Amino acid sequence: MEFFEKLKFDSNGLIPAIIQDHKTGEVLMLGYMNEEALRKTLQEGKVHFWSRSRRRLWLKGETSGHYQLVKEIYFDCDGDALLIKVDQIGGACHEGYRSCFFRRVTEDGGFEIVGEKVFDPDKVYTA
Amino acid sequence: MEFFEKLKFDSNGLIPAIIQDHKTGEVLMLGYMNEEALRKTLQEGKVHFWSRSRRRLWLKGETSGHYQLVKEIYFDCDGDALLIKVDQIGGACHEGYRSCFFRRVTEDGGFEIVGEKVFDPDKVYTA
Repeated sequence: MEFFEKLKFDSNGLIPAIIQDHKTGEVLMLGYMNEEALRKTLQEGKVHFWSRSRRRLWLKGETSGHYQLVKEIYFDCDGDALLIKVDQIGGACHEGYRSCFFRRVTEDGGFEIVGEKVFDPDKVYTA
Repeated sequence: MEFFEKLKFDSNGLIPAIIQDHKTGEVLMLGYMNEEALRKTLQEGKVHFWSRSRRRLWLKGETSGHYQLVKEIYFDCDGDALLIKVDQIGGACHEGYRSCFFRRVTEDGGFEIVGEKVFDPDKVYTA
């Protein structure tokens, strides 16, 4: 993998991956991949991350079915960030929103919810 | 700043910020902010980062004039990533491209340059 050699994983062996809707351009989330997560993403065409909180490989959508189907992968000038354009099944956010960036900062330093809720987390994550 | 309380800076005091063109939706770069960089960004309306390599506050465009004028700021469900929509003057990438994500991975595991070159770095960075 020629492009792999251009990448710099950090001291924890991770690289951040921006996930973007390939049709609308909406930024859906930021996740972290180790080498294995990136290789599985390439092999299977579905986004895999390294979950820093659970300390394990994580197929995005494994519980919810809300997979991220890979359309294009880009990497940046320094080789220390990825941009992955995907076809997002359902919603990216575990809180039920299409995008994890559903809160916008307001002029007074507060925030407002502007995201679109596309599913009910209580019905999707029933474990 | 009510939204500040929702943010989680990492063990180095940093939070990643995705920079996106507010008109086209193009993802331009990923940078890192500490609290001071974020406060200055809010105060001045121009994106500031913490440069991890130079270990100092960094007004994006301070040398090139290629400032990023803040239009909207979002933060994610976990409070550990920012999405900032900007009006990008010139190009975001020090290599002369509009976006730092100017290389796309090809099917054979190589890559191709697909980004648009918008300035000549040798003429802009003359120090």
